[in-house]
Parts: sequence; structure tokens; C-alpha cells
Amino acid sequence: MSVKKINHIGIIVPSIEEALKPYVEALGLEAGEVQLLEQHKLRVVFLPVGDTQIELIEPLDAESDQAAFLRRTGGGFEHICFETSELEGELARLKGLGFRLIHEVPITGANNARIAFVHADGFHNVTVELCQLADCPA
Amino acid sequence: MSVKKINHIGIIVPSIEEALKPYVEALGLEAGEVQLLEQHKLRVVFLPVGDTQIELIEPLDAESDQAAFLRRTGGGFEHICFETSELEGELARLKGLGFRLIHEVPITGANNARIAFVHADGFHNVTVELCQLADCPA
Repeated sequence: MSVKKINHIGIIVPSIEEALKPYVEALGLEAGEVQLLEQHKLRVVFLPVGDTQIELIEPLDAESDQAAFLRRTGGGFEHICFETSELEGELARLKGLGFRLIHEVPITGANNARIAFVHADGFHNVTVELCQLADCPA
Repeated sequence: MSVKKINHIGIIVPSIEEALKPYVEALGLEAGEVQLLEQHKLRVVFLPVGDTQIELIEPLDAESDQAAFLRRTGGGFEHICFETSELEGELARLKGLGFRLIHEVPITGANNARIAFVHADGFHNVTVELCQLADCPA
């Protein structure tokens, strides 16, 4: 198995600028640059902590799944992203085990990572993302 | 600021044995021993991944906050725990900044860590736990 670590924990928020404050001002984390993911109609920012990161996600499109999550919950934890060096292999393996893949073919996410999501129903309500970093050796 | 890393991500589940399966069988994570926290009326298990851990939490008391979360949500992400070496100092600092502390005085959690929770309203719906490990130098 090639899951090595948690790349990030994804948290959906109404406003990145507002949501950053407690992490930066109270916990002392450092935020990277805010990224506009035009293709996904999201703004995101990563805050490294230990060997993982918190990702704050602000939906820009009211029709998106992320905006629906925000309306339903008021925001909060949305997914956990595990890093792998064998993304296609892991997706095929998970599919073979009966997991429902949201992306059967990886898409491009933040930081040009190749990513794919797995339905939360396979993990008791936890949406799982798998990612392979752009500079990650196969 | 003394937050060094994420100690764990807490996920509330109806049954630890059921919830472990996808993490162990599909993602290949290794589970520690299931711990009975009698004082908190919880069963918990930790799965190390990178420098952090996933904590699966099974409420044993229908009157507990964790059981109420389970009924309301069906289970899922519940809190994020940051590790610090200055727990009392951080709690005092957060209180001074206006955060609402669930525990003004630390309690004992799993693995004999000293822990305290901060209300989710200070972190836009994300419940934050601070912990200081039993063997962590002050």
C-alpha cells in the first residue's frame, strides 16, 4: 500500500480571510498564498502544520457541491487527503474493493497535484481524496 | 507559539470495528489497540499516518455530546487536535483572545495526554483540541 501521509485536511469556509484569522492569530500557523482555482471555482489556502496541512476552501460558485456543503452545514471539515505515489493503481484497487470513485480518472487540483475523490459512503461519512504530487516520483 | 503539529483528527463513528475496515483494508493503515476510556464513556483507536493520527471514536453513552453528534450527523469528522508543549499557557492565551474554552483546566484523555477542547465557534465550526503528551517536555 502506498498511502504515506495525510497531505491535508480540507475545511470549507464562507470566507478565507475570516477563517484564516484564528489559525494564524491564535494558533500561530503560517498561511501560504491564497490560490484561485478557476477550473473548480474555488479559492483555497494551505497552512502547513507538522508534515501535513490544513486547507481552507471558499466556494465561488453557488451551484457547486462545496457551496451546497456550506449551506447545509455552515462550513467545517469536508475531506481528508492522503498522499500516494501510485494514484492510478490505488484508484483501481479501491474500485475493485467496491468503493465508489467520484473521479475514475484523476483531475488536476491545487498545486498542480493530480487528485481524485472517493465517496464518503465508503468511509462512514468521511470524504477521502487521494493525491499524487506533481513532483512526486512514481 | 507552541503548536507543533496535528496530534490527531477525531472522527466519530457508530462502531469502531466497522469503521476501521476501510482505513486498514483499503488504505493500509495500521490500527493501535482499541482503548476503553471509562471516564469519558468512549472507545477509541488511533491509526498513525505520517506524523499524525486518525482517531476513531465510538460513544458508549447515549447522553454524551459525542452520541448527540452521531445522531445529528450520522458520524464523521468531529475535531482536530493540535499538540503543544505549553498547554496551560496556550489555554490562557486563547481565553484572553476571546475563545470559549470547553475545558478551562486540562483533563486526561487517551494515552494519558492532558487535553482541553476549544469551542468550534472560534474556528468557524471546527472543534479544536489542544493536547500535551504525557512524556512531552514542558
